[in-house]
Amino acid sequence: MKGLMMHFPLTVPSILEYGNRVFPSKQVVTLLPNGSLHRYAFADLYRRSRRLSEVLRLRWNIAPGDRIATFAWNQYQHLELYYAIPGAGAVCHPLNIRLSVSQIAWIINDAQDKVIFIDASLVPVFEKVIPMLDHVPDFVIINADKDFKAGFRFMHYEDLELDTPATQDWVAADEDDACGMCYTTGTTGEPKGVLYSHRSTYLHAMSIMSPNAFNISMHDTALLIVPQFHVMAWGFPYVCILAGANMIMPSSHLQSQAIVQLIQQEKVTIANGVPAIWLQVLDYLKKNPPAEKLTLREFFVGGSAVPESLLQGFDELFGIRGVHAWGMTETSPLGTISRLQPHHERLSPDAQRKIRSKQGIEMPAVELRLIKEDGTIAARDGETTGEFEIRGAWVAGRYYNSEAHSDQAFVDGWFKTGDVGTIDPDGYMLITDRKKDLIKSGGEWISSIALETALVAHPSIKEACVIAVPDAKWAERPLACIVIEDGTTVSPDDLKTFLKGSFASFQVPDQYVVMQEIPKTSVGKLNKKALRKLYQEGELKPVK
Amino acid sequence: MKGLMMHFPLTVPSILEYGNRVFPSKQVVTLLPNGSLHRYAFADLYRRSRRLSEVLRLRWNIAPGDRIATFAWNQYQHLELYYAIPGAGAVCHPLNIRLSVSQIAWIINDAQDKVIFIDASLVPVFEKVIPMLDHVPDFVIINADKDFKAGFRFMHYEDLELDTPATQDWVAADEDDACGMCYTTGTTGEPKGVLYSHRSTYLHAMSIMSPNAFNISMHDTALLIVPQFHVMAWGFPYVCILAGANMIMPSSHLQSQAIVQLIQQEKVTIANGVPAIWLQVLDYLKKNPPAEKLTLREFFVGGSAVPESLLQGFDELFGIRGVHAWGMTETSPLGTISRLQPHHERLSPDAQRKIRSKQGIEMPAVELRLIKEDGTIAARDGETTGEFEIRGAWVAGRYYNSEAHSDQAFVDGWFKTGDVGTIDPDGYMLITDRKKDLIKSGGEWISSIALETALVAHPSIKEACVIAVPDAKWAERPLACIVIEDGTTVSPDDLKTFLKGSFASFQVPDQYVVMQEIPKTSVGKLNKKALRKLYQEGELKPVK
Repeated sequence: MKGLMMHFPLTVPSILEYGNRVFPSKQVVTLLPNGSLHRYAFADLYRRSRRLSEVLRLRWNIAPGDRIATFAWNQYQHLELYYAIPGAGAVCHPLNIRLSVSQIAWIINDAQDKVIFIDASLVPVFEKVIPMLDHVPDFVIINADKDFKAGFRFMHYEDLELDTPATQDWVAADEDDACGMCYTTGTTGEPKGVLYSHRSTYLHAMSIMSPNAFNISMHDTALLIVPQFHVMAWGFPYVCILAGANMIMPSSHLQSQAIVQLIQQEKVTIANGVPAIWLQVLDYLKKNPPAEKLTLREFFVGGSAVPESLLQGFDELFGIRGVHAWGMTETSPLGTISRLQPHHERLSPDAQRKIRSKQGIEMPAVELRLIKEDGTIAARDGETTGEFEIRGAWVAGRYYNSEAHSDQAFVDGWFKTGDVGTIDPDGYMLITDRKKDLIKSGGEWISSIALETALVAHPSIKEACVIAVPDAKWAERPLACIVIEDGTTVSPDDLKTFLKGSFASFQVPDQYVVMQEIPKTSVGKLNKKALRKLYQEGELKPVK
Repeated sequence: MKGLMMHFPLTVPSILEYGNRVFPSKQVVTLLPNGSLHRYAFADLYRRSRRLSEVLRLRWNIAPGDRIATFAWNQYQHLELYYAIPGAGAVCHPLNIRLSVSQIAWIINDAQDKVIFIDASLVPVFEKVIPMLDHVPDFVIINADKDFKAGFRFMHYEDLELDTPATQDWVAADEDDACGMCYTTGTTGEPKGVLYSHRSTYLHAMSIMSPNAFNISMHDTALLIVPQFHVMAWGFPYVCILAGANMIMPSSHLQSQAIVQLIQQEKVTIANGVPAIWLQVLDYLKKNPPAEKLTLREFFVGGSAVPESLLQGFDELFGIRGVHAWGMTETSPLGTISRLQPHHERLSPDAQRKIRSKQGIEMPAVELRLIKEDGTIAARDGETTGEFEIRGAWVAGRYYNSEAHSDQAFVDGWFKTGDVGTIDPDGYMLITDRKKDLIKSGGEWISSIALETALVAHPSIKEACVIAVPDAKWAERPLACIVIEDGTTVSPDDLKTFLKGSFASFQVPDQYVVMQEIPKTSVGKLNKKALRKLYQEGELKPVK
């Protein structure tokens, strides 16, 4: 027997309808690439997005399911696109501006984007992409001066006349229709598209609002540092509208000084970002202590493991709480979040930070399990290691246009994350490694992440990355690539002695390579794939 | 084009699966009808509910869609039924123990409940219902002594052996399947069944968790005063499991002393209840000031309009915040909630309480509109009056088994609430009256609620209820029924003078009836229908 409740589809336009109805005066503030501040209200975002949605249909004949790409910063026009595109029944596809030109072209060709909206400041990058496209999208440039020149035909965003009142309503969508798309590049293989639905986007936004997650209310002002081209800025463009939180958009101004100024000027209470950003902000704040306590209450940090020292610095020096969360492009992204439970309150701050730097507990409507090498489910004992598998209401079920990768990653209704670790009896996920980055030496696992974390704790080491290299006797051995702090020195023997305090002998790397810089991926992660390639090519010379 | 996300149905058993996985040690504490304290963990609730779900199928052949009723207090066994029944694919149907015997029988006959679970303390009431049933359900009695006698065949809940491990999984449900049922009695007509779905129940629970709503987290301990037989205890049996909040169940112990003791002993942080309960608790606390500040952070109050004096008493004397919410059986129930917005913070406490005693702003996934008498939509200007219509993801679309009532109440995809009032420019709903309780005198509306609120502010008046009575000249006139405080006196002329300070002359009642007590409905609301009947029968004599 069916329930007798209304059919009320959870759609992206209904999020903005809500924001316009209930929080019309809440603000969207953008520090534009040219340094000027743009400020308007949710009611303006609504009005212009409705009109843009209509313009997409009138001018480009956009039909349900068409992909429309963006190549832009966190800015109000990008928000308008986030709502206007799904509101036209189409798929909003933010392109990662940090990828290589050939990757960007590959992705556009795979998605067959029909129109691409580009910020003027990013045109020089994009011009190199154009010759590699296999089709001819239309282009719209945002924030261009009247006499702006580009090496391709375009129209001005400002000429779309978005202040004209809309006459058409949103295109009615089924909640399972696609509304957004992000490609995951990972560190291996070709990019893979994840196709979000209206429903998954809505449920994810509703869920991350809760006090156990990001705890966002109408009393908050959120600074969106995570780019809109990284997993939909972790859902902030949606949740802020549902929660009635003001949104502060820094566009290209991601230097610590600009971030701190925005926090002070706009009285920001929450913000999101990767550890690299927060490490820089912490460093900046140490050197430039604010005259008044910052309004920032909490910052959310994810994308890679969070160093305890980062949490400690903000805790002790500025009374600001860092909250670590974990997810992937395939998980919308929030899978877990690491907040303390009441019985942790009696622990010392250090012991608490050990828990807070774990990946945390599952969100409702998300289910995590740990699969051992023998295929059975591992106990949640904090010791048994396995690969994390996840399923849930905002977890991808397939990749777009990629059957082979889908068959590998999505098995029996679960997504195989490739992350390896444990779940403790309190339910906290701890990632110890990426599956392919684990080092198996003489039949025993060595965690490259554990070694990296230990190495960077050495006063002479600025960066460290450990990869597996082939070894005749032990099958694999760890190789440590390190960047040395200016004005210091350190020898392999020093490091071996240093590591032996915390690791079994077999776990300590024998070989050390000193580098100027560790290669990074487009999202700033250590690029182990590139290091392995350098090693194979004989480019990595261990120090004697 | 469809999104490529997993199919993850939002079901009631998946709520308990989550609670068991992530918060297995969180507590359910029941003060049983016999005064003993029962205490167990979410993991126990999970284990026993899974087993009970299996027992329902094995012993009674429960099939998907069957209705199973409860006649019980807020107690752990009732929670087990809340999960076990939907987990067997059936519909959990809590019967309102406060209704008249004939109404209860009518409802059971309408729902055709197959099994009924009754708390031993309620058997004397239920015995009177049995002869009026048109079918023979099976009966199970909870908390009965071994030698318990009843005037009907029954089995003991304790004999179901719920500590035996379950071997079968939950019955897989579609999220649109029915999982729960409540009858609304209102004040007119026969009871009408509302049939909740797994999806509506899940979404409502997820939504009320948010900081703009009830703001429930794993740091909370919730006291469930709203009975499980009133609109599913406002969703608390579900949201507490999702949030990881301890649940304190008072069963039949609803006296102020017991409530305050539970709050102190279990360190309760949040609780829900109708205004009548909180007025009594406030009164008790005034007479018995607690030695230490109560841990209670907020209480949620709904079911009828909240007096500002109630909010003020808790604010000023005990530093506890009352948060008013509005909803109906048809809305699961939460439709709106009244929290202040940031720009209200500069107002005086009194001005803030004027806003806090409004019904508040819409929840996400709920949409409110105001329909004027001419059928057009009223502006959100705080002045234009209309009838509230609502639609949303947890709003009923039809009544069970009641086509005529459904056709009247559910029109064009909206539910006509029968409540009349305004929405202010900040989006706050203010109910000024029930549609049928408005008094139209000489072509002008008079709000009976406004008069009642004013009258009870008079020091000599304990209770007041204003009804419309026919009048030859003005069509209708207000009649005020009042209960006078012991040891005081007041005359109609005093009251007219008193009211003229706040009302237009035509709005002031000419006639006053002094009563020992105002008749109440089963849920404690003023029973205007009964008063009107008394008036028609000549039983109400106005004072000279």
